[in-house]
Amino acid sequence: MEISQRIQKMGEPALLKYYSMVNTVQKKGKKVYFLNIGQPDIPTPVGFLECLNCFDEKVLAYQAPEGIRPLREAACGYYRRLGLDYTIEDLFVTNGGSEALLFTFIGICNPGDEILTAEPLYSIYKEMAAATNVTLVGFKTYAEDGFALPDSAVIEAAITEKTRAILMTNPGNPTGKVFTQQEITVLKELALKHDLYLISDEVYREFIYDDQVYLSPSQQPDLEQNFILIDSISKRYSACGARIGFIISKNKRLMKQLKKLCQMRLSVSTIDQIGAVSLFALEQNFFDEILAEYAHRREIVYQALQEIPGLICKEPKGAFYFMAKLPIRDASHFIEWMITDFDYLGETVLLSPANDFYLNPADGADEVRIAYVLKERDMLAAMEILKQGLSAYGLTFPESRK
Amino acid sequence: MEISQRIQKMGEPALLKYYSMVNTVQKKGKKVYFLNIGQPDIPTPVGFLECLNCFDEKVLAYQAPEGIRPLREAACGYYRRLGLDYTIEDLFVTNGGSEALLFTFIGICNPGDEILTAEPLYSIYKEMAAATNVTLVGFKTYAEDGFALPDSAVIEAAITEKTRAILMTNPGNPTGKVFTQQEITVLKELALKHDLYLISDEVYREFIYDDQVYLSPSQQPDLEQNFILIDSISKRYSACGARIGFIISKNKRLMKQLKKLCQMRLSVSTIDQIGAVSLFALEQNFFDEILAEYAHRREIVYQALQEIPGLICKEPKGAFYFMAKLPIRDASHFIEWMITDFDYLGETVLLSPANDFYLNPADGADEVRIAYVLKERDMLAAMEILKQGLSAYGLTFPESRK
Repeated sequence: MEISQRIQKMGEPALLKYYSMVNTVQKKGKKVYFLNIGQPDIPTPVGFLECLNCFDEKVLAYQAPEGIRPLREAACGYYRRLGLDYTIEDLFVTNGGSEALLFTFIGICNPGDEILTAEPLYSIYKEMAAATNVTLVGFKTYAEDGFALPDSAVIEAAITEKTRAILMTNPGNPTGKVFTQQEITVLKELALKHDLYLISDEVYREFIYDDQVYLSPSQQPDLEQNFILIDSISKRYSACGARIGFIISKNKRLMKQLKKLCQMRLSVSTIDQIGAVSLFALEQNFFDEILAEYAHRREIVYQALQEIPGLICKEPKGAFYFMAKLPIRDASHFIEWMITDFDYLGETVLLSPANDFYLNPADGADEVRIAYVLKERDMLAAMEILKQGLSAYGLTFPESRK
Repeated sequence: MEISQRIQKMGEPALLKYYSMVNTVQKKGKKVYFLNIGQPDIPTPVGFLECLNCFDEKVLAYQAPEGIRPLREAACGYYRRLGLDYTIEDLFVTNGGSEALLFTFIGICNPGDEILTAEPLYSIYKEMAAATNVTLVGFKTYAEDGFALPDSAVIEAAITEKTRAILMTNPGNPTGKVFTQQEITVLKELALKHDLYLISDEVYREFIYDDQVYLSPSQQPDLEQNFILIDSISKRYSACGARIGFIISKNKRLMKQLKKLCQMRLSVSTIDQIGAVSLFALEQNFFDEILAEYAHRREIVYQALQEIPGLICKEPKGAFYFMAKLPIRDASHFIEWMITDFDYLGETVLLSPANDFYLNPADGADEVRIAYVLKERDMLAAMEILKQGLSAYGLTFPESRK
């Protein structure tokens, strides 16, 4: 029997490759700090589980394919507080932001169609595209200038007759990039001019630092028909294990079609939907506290990273990741070596190799992504381990030094 | 902007078309018996919700993409009790049986590839195929002979160089068909001869009546590499709202690839997985009681259906649906009329039009599917309403009578 070409084209996240190695060394007593994934350590608001105790139906039944009404209403309330005017007809509940993306790819692209996006990119976009026979086309952005969008003409040059959408991640993962009004305008005008969708993945919306403000194509009324918003409660409410996301658009013709995909998989988890209702009732001070915590982590990690000889990085403006250029040639090898061969006082650290975040795996070979998802003490310990590890690695593999 | 051809090819389940009509009449006080969907009224075992109270983590985190180990182990224990030797490496947890099917379609088919299946079929297979650019090819089976498989030669004639798999539903939805050893052997030999996968969707495994026994290709060791089992807790444990399914195969090469699809959507609901562990611990007497209840419902519905003039049906051998041929030409119109124009003592009934269960929508125009998912009193009331409704419809639309 054959295995499909499309699934064979999908990549296996580096994450998984390392996990068996990590398990082995953990069993031998080595402590590992996981800075490789965006799994926050912030407690999930207790309302989520308390809500479940309110469930008093005898039968755990299918819910409406588009999501339960109380959750859709609660989400609309949240968007209203952000100044966004969405009604329940504009949004469907999905199995996490992942399913919202999958539905978008299936709903707007035929096999062979293209979606344009900035690199570095969230690695799972690549797998999503392969699974749905969509071709992702990238335009590069660079740490040196804060991952600013290139000139409109550069992006436009990548648009072909097969392009269906531009996909932006705001704030960016892994870049921490926060889009400016000018950049949003550039993408909006390209979308309108070339009759494309503009998809904005905003699952890190609340994680914006310094004097940056949240700006989104969802604030542009003239883009309404072209705009698709991807959202998720995972990061915002530290509820990654509740698979609750949203696909949102005011394009009624599109939503009518996307509803069929909701119907195809019948329902999203009843219990997760009920739990999620409570989360949207949380006030702004919930986010303020979390943002203060992440802003602090960002500061201390940035200070620590600057003390590592030869490591280059800029302070991210959003999300909770650093992209860092290491003073060595092969970050993947270094990450593996840190797990299998290195420890500092019995501890080590797991990072993400950044080549996962590029379409061409040769790109980003000397870069890593560092998720600052642990508390201060752990982050500081992890940074010291990274510093010691880079030093020891340089001595062990002098030919790998840059 | 364009909307993809593949999503436009998807159908909208008739179910949804009727729901807005149903809402309207319910608001006016009409009571509606829902016999249109397989949503059992059996209470979900209390262990599911009790289990949730055991959740004592502070963070509702992502779980392993392939599912939590306790759930995979519990599922293996359940299969062992059925005499099936699966280990946790052979199975991944999915967002319901729906996602298991979606992953199968993506994993074994490129766009344009074909999957062969018996008609009538579970209508969502059609939508799943459209969404993934797979072509479903049907061979007919008929109520008259209990939906028996046609001769091997008839099925074989439908195999082309694009065929990747034969998909069977055992027991069948909407047919209630339970596969015999001989039929399984026919499909197995075709799969082996033509190097195809055999996919068996067995979500109704416990709903087998009379002297029929559960038989499955999973009991055929020589088919191991070709076999994919689709499963779900939804019907078995009356837990449709917990989105927990399984994709199962001993083909390690295939599973290694399918794992990428699990990784692509990160995780299945943590809470639903924890709740589901408790369900697999239930003993056989749990199923015995439920089966006795459904067997009883089947009997009383069958008796009632036989008293309806001109209605033709056979007693199903499995699952919980009757396929019935009505004495009128247009079942869809009748179903709609029953909602909008008819009531019997203030009550009416919602059925599924059977044309949803055929690849050619002209097929099954005079047939309906009746789900016997309500308790005796309600089923009897619904059958009386159906009888009165058919009589009144025949008088109102004499030209529609056969």
